[in-house]
Amino acid sequence: MARFTAKYEIESPIGIGRAAEVLAGEQSSGTFVRLAAETDELRERSRARVERVDVLNISEQPSLPTRRRGSQYERGIVTVSWPVATIGNSLPNLLATIAGNLFELAEISAIRLLDVDLPREFVEACPGPKFGVTGTRRLAGVEEGLMVGTIIKPSVGFSPDDTAALVKQLAEADIDFIKDDELQANGPNCPLEDRAREVMRVLNDHQEKTGKKVMYAFNITDEVEEMWRHAETIQSLGGSCLMVSLHSVGLAGMRALRDHCDLPLHGHRNGWGLYSRSPDIGISYVAWQKLWRLAGADHLHVNGLGNKFTESDSVVAESARAVQAPVCEDGPTYAAMPVYSSGQTAWQIAPSRDILGSDDFIFCAGGGIMSHPSGPAAGVTALRQAAMAAREGINVEEFAKSHRELSEALERFEKPTLTKT
Amino acid sequence: MARFTAKYEIESPIGIGRAAEVLAGEQSSGTFVRLAAETDELRERSRARVERVDVLNISEQPSLPTRRRGSQYERGIVTVSWPVATIGNSLPNLLATIAGNLFELAEISAIRLLDVDLPREFVEACPGPKFGVTGTRRLAGVEEGLMVGTIIKPSVGFSPDDTAALVKQLAEADIDFIKDDELQANGPNCPLEDRAREVMRVLNDHQEKTGKKVMYAFNITDEVEEMWRHAETIQSLGGSCLMVSLHSVGLAGMRALRDHCDLPLHGHRNGWGLYSRSPDIGISYVAWQKLWRLAGADHLHVNGLGNKFTESDSVVAESARAVQAPVCEDGPTYAAMPVYSSGQTAWQIAPSRDILGSDDFIFCAGGGIMSHPSGPAAGVTALRQAAMAAREGINVEEFAKSHRELSEALERFEKPTLTKT
Repeated sequence: MARFTAKYEIESPIGIGRAAEVLAGEQSSGTFVRLAAETDELRERSRARVERVDVLNISEQPSLPTRRRGSQYERGIVTVSWPVATIGNSLPNLLATIAGNLFELAEISAIRLLDVDLPREFVEACPGPKFGVTGTRRLAGVEEGLMVGTIIKPSVGFSPDDTAALVKQLAEADIDFIKDDELQANGPNCPLEDRAREVMRVLNDHQEKTGKKVMYAFNITDEVEEMWRHAETIQSLGGSCLMVSLHSVGLAGMRALRDHCDLPLHGHRNGWGLYSRSPDIGISYVAWQKLWRLAGADHLHVNGLGNKFTESDSVVAESARAVQAPVCEDGPTYAAMPVYSSGQTAWQIAPSRDILGSDDFIFCAGGGIMSHPSGPAAGVTALRQAAMAAREGINVEEFAKSHRELSEALERFEKPTLTKT
Repeated sequence: MARFTAKYEIESPIGIGRAAEVLAGEQSSGTFVRLAAETDELRERSRARVERVDVLNISEQPSLPTRRRGSQYERGIVTVSWPVATIGNSLPNLLATIAGNLFELAEISAIRLLDVDLPREFVEACPGPKFGVTGTRRLAGVEEGLMVGTIIKPSVGFSPDDTAALVKQLAEADIDFIKDDELQANGPNCPLEDRAREVMRVLNDHQEKTGKKVMYAFNITDEVEEMWRHAETIQSLGGSCLMVSLHSVGLAGMRALRDHCDLPLHGHRNGWGLYSRSPDIGISYVAWQKLWRLAGADHLHVNGLGNKFTESDSVVAESARAVQAPVCEDGPTYAAMPVYSSGQTAWQIAPSRDILGSDDFIFCAGGGIMSHPSGPAAGVTALRQAAMAAREGINVEEFAKSHRELSEALERFEKPTLTKT
């Protein structure tokens, strides 16, 4: 019988092996009193199983406040497995099982979900991204090379007309991809339908003139049926991408979009810090992003190298690779398009490309384009020059000597100190 | 112009006042470079505003790993406000604003969202619970007194027939409320429709015989359209309650249920430890539960006093009160039914009631009913006796002297050490 497994880093006052048994009990047939009805055969059929325990270290203090105390706290990696037959091929119920009532167990003084391994039958029963890399390239008309993207900034405050005016400028700067900010959805200050109409008028005009359809990710985050309506509107106006805040719509909301909309879904992970920020509680992006790809996300944010937030470059690299790695060993790949963003400039292009070993990514720069000394068009050109240098394996500063826009960009934006990933 | 506010506990190497300004900037018009298009007038119209800053203490080390270091780390409470006109009355977008890209700010070394205050217009635009306390009592036929509930245990492993047999026993024990475990949804081992048919046959029979319709919360957690189908099935079989795992279905999923189903929605908060466990990162239940009530949750889990997890009794008390407090100052109350559970026995009834000052709650005991030495019927009776004692203000041990089932329960289950709440 097929099983799925989850890997956790845990810390415990009772030893991580015993703590893993508590977790497995709690997340399958357990309660604090063994019940009469709970036969051995029933336990065998349905129970979660501890598959592996690797101790890493011991400390004298618990990492998180905990009711249960011990003389020492053991930390390490444990793997637990469950029979698929218990939950069926249901993604929402997978979440309740691998990330349910376990973060607050008294026997655990730190816990992070590191990864989840799913059997092929489960993965195949989930639809996965409808567009992924290939579909995105096709709709954006970018056959090769990375996709240069940007975010409409300021995040909020622009009217639909202001937005369209900026979009016109960016389209003329030959950008590939533009996205709404996650704070800009459908408020009375800038209603989605008005914004979409004005923006698509500009982009459709631009396409008529140049043949290029810039991809714009409209933030349709909302209630399910509103999102369906928004998606129809966008599609009828000729739009080619829909963006949602993942945590706002939930796994079930994402899947409902996947099933009803026929455009790439751009997944914005705002709120991610809640899962990632602490070394002692949370979920790794390696695990988390699998669930969103299974639910249908085509693009997934992965932060950026040398970002303005707190994630290290190695975590950014791991995240970017993760969204393109096969979602399970012997099944469909379901690769999503990684989206680098947050304080990105021409400096980060080569190392971002090196992480993936390909150009299959969206590189979003806000200030990194808009604040180029010779204007946004030069900003986009500088990024394309950096991309060309990266593809040809030429050092960006070397390449800049013969490319003015790139040279200006490197001068304008501070060189970030990146960690080798 | 109406504004909403969020209160955070934060810690920062640059002082919490300046950190709050960074947060307000990031969560409204800010980027790392001030853009030409960002006029003063535009900022004024759309910008988040720091309303209040209260320093609590200073420490020498950051609570969370952070890129930005300082000589000291100031900690305290800050309040930030936003204009509603930016997001409109949209709950999913409220979440992206108050709990979006702020947990990972480099200028912040700890952050918890403590509360959110919403203007009446926002609250009124959200539907709120369709049933709440009154509707639940009506459907369960429990006019007064607390509702004695239980969870089907073992969590998983039972067939539909096994489940129905246990339900029969519990109904005959005169229970008010039974719920599926959050791990039991619609897997091949115990398909929802089969389970519902068998369980409702028992409960409908019981109703014919006794006039009492025991409320059973079927776990319909799944994709949106599957949940709609499940809900129809449950309703057509005469069921009276639907349960979902909140984090699995998301705010948008909950609202989609609220809009399409005509039964109380029982909100299970598994995974809650991820938000609550660390003092340095997370969201308080005071803030979190408001969002779920606005989306339509009728019942909300609040853990239990002396629970087997890690939440303190004071947090449990605060959570239980929170779900019944008005969701905003001058608008609809939208009270939900608090659900106490986790290691609950007759010992916890009086203090649980004291927290609320009323009987408007569901008290769920698993082992606390099933493991009663004289069987489940005596287990339920013991809880009713404890409830009666609490209502009459009589000490439970005193009351037990003249009530055998209660006396046996107090002897069987260890007296928990509770903290005064």
